[in-house]
Amino acid sequence: MRTRVPFSQKALRTQEQPISYLMQAAVQNRDLISLAAGLVDEPSLPVEVARDLVNEILAEPDSGQMALQYGTTHGYLTLRRQVLQHLCQMEGCSAEDLNLSVENVIISTGSQQMLFLVSDVLLDPGDIVIVSAPSYFVYTGTLASFGVSTRAAAVDAGGTRIDEVRRRLEELAAEGNLARCKLIYEMSYYQNPTGLTLAADRRRALVELAREFSTADHRILVLEDAAYRELCYDGGDLPSVKRYDPDNEFVVLCQTFSKPFSPGLKTGYTFLPDELVEPVLHQKGNHDFGSNNFAQHLISRAIETGAYARQVKRLRETYRRKRDVMLSALDDEFGDFPGGPVSCTRPGGGLYVWATFPPSVPTPRDGALFAACLGEGVLYVPGEYCYEAGVCPDMASRTMRLCFGVVPQDKIVEGVRRLARAARRCVTAAARA
Amino acid sequence: MRTRVPFSQKALRTQEQPISYLMQAAVQNRDLISLAAGLVDEPSLPVEVARDLVNEILAEPDSGQMALQYGTTHGYLTLRRQVLQHLCQMEGCSAEDLNLSVENVIISTGSQQMLFLVSDVLLDPGDIVIVSAPSYFVYTGTLASFGVSTRAAAVDAGGTRIDEVRRRLEELAAEGNLARCKLIYEMSYYQNPTGLTLAADRRRALVELAREFSTADHRILVLEDAAYRELCYDGGDLPSVKRYDPDNEFVVLCQTFSKPFSPGLKTGYTFLPDELVEPVLHQKGNHDFGSNNFAQHLISRAIETGAYARQVKRLRETYRRKRDVMLSALDDEFGDFPGGPVSCTRPGGGLYVWATFPPSVPTPRDGALFAACLGEGVLYVPGEYCYEAGVCPDMASRTMRLCFGVVPQDKIVEGVRRLARAARRCVTAAARA
Repeated sequence: MRTRVPFSQKALRTQEQPISYLMQAAVQNRDLISLAAGLVDEPSLPVEVARDLVNEILAEPDSGQMALQYGTTHGYLTLRRQVLQHLCQMEGCSAEDLNLSVENVIISTGSQQMLFLVSDVLLDPGDIVIVSAPSYFVYTGTLASFGVSTRAAAVDAGGTRIDEVRRRLEELAAEGNLARCKLIYEMSYYQNPTGLTLAADRRRALVELAREFSTADHRILVLEDAAYRELCYDGGDLPSVKRYDPDNEFVVLCQTFSKPFSPGLKTGYTFLPDELVEPVLHQKGNHDFGSNNFAQHLISRAIETGAYARQVKRLRETYRRKRDVMLSALDDEFGDFPGGPVSCTRPGGGLYVWATFPPSVPTPRDGALFAACLGEGVLYVPGEYCYEAGVCPDMASRTMRLCFGVVPQDKIVEGVRRLARAARRCVTAAARA
Repeated sequence: MRTRVPFSQKALRTQEQPISYLMQAAVQNRDLISLAAGLVDEPSLPVEVARDLVNEILAEPDSGQMALQYGTTHGYLTLRRQVLQHLCQMEGCSAEDLNLSVENVIISTGSQQMLFLVSDVLLDPGDIVIVSAPSYFVYTGTLASFGVSTRAAAVDAGGTRIDEVRRRLEELAAEGNLARCKLIYEMSYYQNPTGLTLAADRRRALVELAREFSTADHRILVLEDAAYRELCYDGGDLPSVKRYDPDNEFVVLCQTFSKPFSPGLKTGYTFLPDELVEPVLHQKGNHDFGSNNFAQHLISRAIETGAYARQVKRLRETYRRKRDVMLSALDDEFGDFPGGPVSCTRPGGGLYVWATFPPSVPTPRDGALFAACLGEGVLYVPGEYCYEAGVCPDMASRTMRLCFGVVPQDKIVEGVRRLARAARRCVTAAARA
C-alpha cells in the first residue's frame, strides 16, 4: 500500500486539458486525419532560415557565448527593443503614443506562460474573469485551476459583443461582485476557436468599458491575446485593442512567435502597464528566472536580417491557400446537407474555421457524430470544450472547431469528406430512430 | 491619477529575488568583479558543438521540422529515454531498480520550473517545507511566495544534518503540524550556496526519515535538487538520494542541462513518483504546454553523439582549475587575516565556495564589508540571503557565497584580493571604533 500524496487545493482544481485526449488519439492512430490539432504547417517551418541564423550566431565566440549563457528574467534587451518597434510598425504609431518603453516588454515561454503569469499576479480563488462564448479552452482551463469563475459574453460576426460585456459588468455591479472582476480576456484577431476578429469599432469600446467600470481602487484590465494577429490573409490589419489605451493603463497585449515563425522556439512577448511589470517579473523569477535565451537570440537575428518578415509573408500565402481549400471542401460537402444548413465562419486569418450544425447532428465528445468520425478516421474539437458548463448549451452541442494548420491540403479535403460522411450517417440514423 | 491594480494574495507575497540587485549592480558597473553571479564559465560554453548539432538537425527537413514544431507538455520522448538511461548509468543500476519508466520523466524550462511546479501541486498557504540552513535562496523565495513557511536544519561538513531534520519533524509532530509538512528540500551535491555535499550515509537516512514520518494518508516527499551533480572535480560520484527510493515513492529528483551544458538552452529534467506525474503535467499544461522543443532536440542530439559527455568532461577540468585558483587565492589572502580566522569550504564540485568570517567582519548587504567591497570593486552574495529571517543569526551575519563560475581566473585572483583589502579595512575601522 502506497502512502497518499497530499495535493494542494490548486492541484485538486486542475483538470487535464480536454484537448489532450484528441492529441493522443491522433498520435496513436496515424491514419486519422486530425482537424482537431492546433499545430502549424510543417513544410513551411523555417528550417533553412533557422540554420542560417544559428550559423551566424554561433560563428563568433562572443555572440555564441551570449546566446548559450543565462539570459535575464525580463528577456533579451535587443529583442525587447525589436518587438516594441515591430508593434509600433503594425500600429502605425510611436512608442510614446502607446506610453510604452522596453521596460514594459517581457519575453515569455510562448504567450501561454504570460497568460498564466498575468493571471497569477491578479487572481485569487473566487475572482471573476469575463470571457467570450465560445472562448479559448486552454486559458479557461487555466482560470478554473486558479479557482476563478467566468462570465461569458456571446459573439457574433464581429467577435465578442460589447453590449454583452457591458451586461455582464452591469450584472456584477448589481450583485456587488464587481470588486472580484479583475480581467476581460479577449482574443482580438482570428479567435481560437471561431476565427472571428473583434470588429474595429468594438476595440475602442472595450477599453472604454474597462475604464468605465474601473474605480480609483480597482482597475479592470483587458487581457488581449493577439497570438494570430500576423497570420492575416485578407484585407488590412486592424489596430489592436491596446492601440486605444494611450496611457498604457488598461490593456495587457500578448503576442507570440509560435504561430508566425516557429512553435518549437516557444517565445512570446507582452506589453504591460507599468504597475504590472515588477509583479510579473517577480513571479517569473520564481517560475524560471528567464525563458530560453538561445531562442531569443535566434529570433532577434531573424528580425534583424529581415528573415522574420519574409517568413511571415510566406506563411500568409501558405495558410491562405489552406484556408481556401478547407472552405471550398466544406462548401462542396455541406452545400446541400440533408440534415439542414451547416454554417461556417470564413476567417480572414488564423488557423481555425468554426462550424455550426443543425440540431440533428450533435457534436459533443460522447455524441453520435464524434463516434462516427472516429469510425471514418477524422477528428475535430467539439464545441462544448469552448464553452463553460451551462453556457449556450444549444451552441455548445452543435458546433466544432476545425483547424487547417498542420494537415496537408489533400488531407484537408479528405478530412472534410470523412466528416461529411459521418454527419450524413448521423442524419440517417436520427431519421430512422 | 491612475487606478489601482488589484493584485492577488500571491503577488502581494512575492518579493523580488535579493540577488537581482547584485546582478544589476554588476551589469551597471563593468569594472566590478562579481563573485556573486551564479553564471557559468563563458569560454567553455559549447559554441562549436551547438553549431554542429544544429546543422545536423536542420540539414534534413524531417528532423528540422520536428524540432521547430510544437513539442509535448511531457517533453521529447527520445530525450526522456536518454536522461533515464543517463541516470541509470550514473547510479549504476537499471530503471527497474528505481521503478522508473519514461512516463516518470518530465522535461522543464530549467530545473527551477520543476521546483515551482512540484511546489504548486503540493503546497497551500500555511504549509511547511523543511530546508537546510543555509539554503538556496531562489527556492526559499519561491516558497515564501506560496505563503509556505520553512523549518531549517543546520548543515555541517557532511551537508544537511539528518539529526536536525529528525528534530524538525519531531517538533512538527509534537505541535500537531506534521500534516502541513509536505516536502523536505535537499540540494544533495555541491549545494548552492555552501558547496557542501550530503554525506553518503545520510542519503538513505533521509529517505528513511521521510518514510518514517509519512502516514498512509500523508506522504512527506524529498525534493532532491541535483543541479550540480555532474560538475564534480574530485573523487567519485555518490548515488543520489533517489537511489534509496526503490519503489519510486518518496523522492522527486530534479536535474538540469544548464550547468553541465548550456544555461541558454534552459532545459531541466525530473524523475517523479507515479502519483505526481499527472498533476504536474496538468499544471505544466497551464503554464506553457511544453518547454522549448528546439533545445530539447539539440540536447538529445548532443547526448546521442557523445558531444554531451565530452563537454561535461571538459567543463570538469575547467572548473576544477578555477576552483583551485579561488581556493589558493583565499588561502593566500586570508591565511593570516588580522581579524581572526576566515574559514572556507573546499567543494568537490559545483560553482561555490562558502566563507565564514570572524564577527568583526559583518557580511550583510547593509554592513561595513559590503560597502567596502563596493568601494574596492568586488561583489559577493551576503550569507543572510541564504537563511530565513531569524535562523542562525550569527552565521547569517558573517558568511558569504563566492562563485568561481563565470569570472576568469585572473579576475578571481584580483576579486579575492579586493575582498581581502575590504575586509582588512573593516577590521582596522572596527579596532579604531
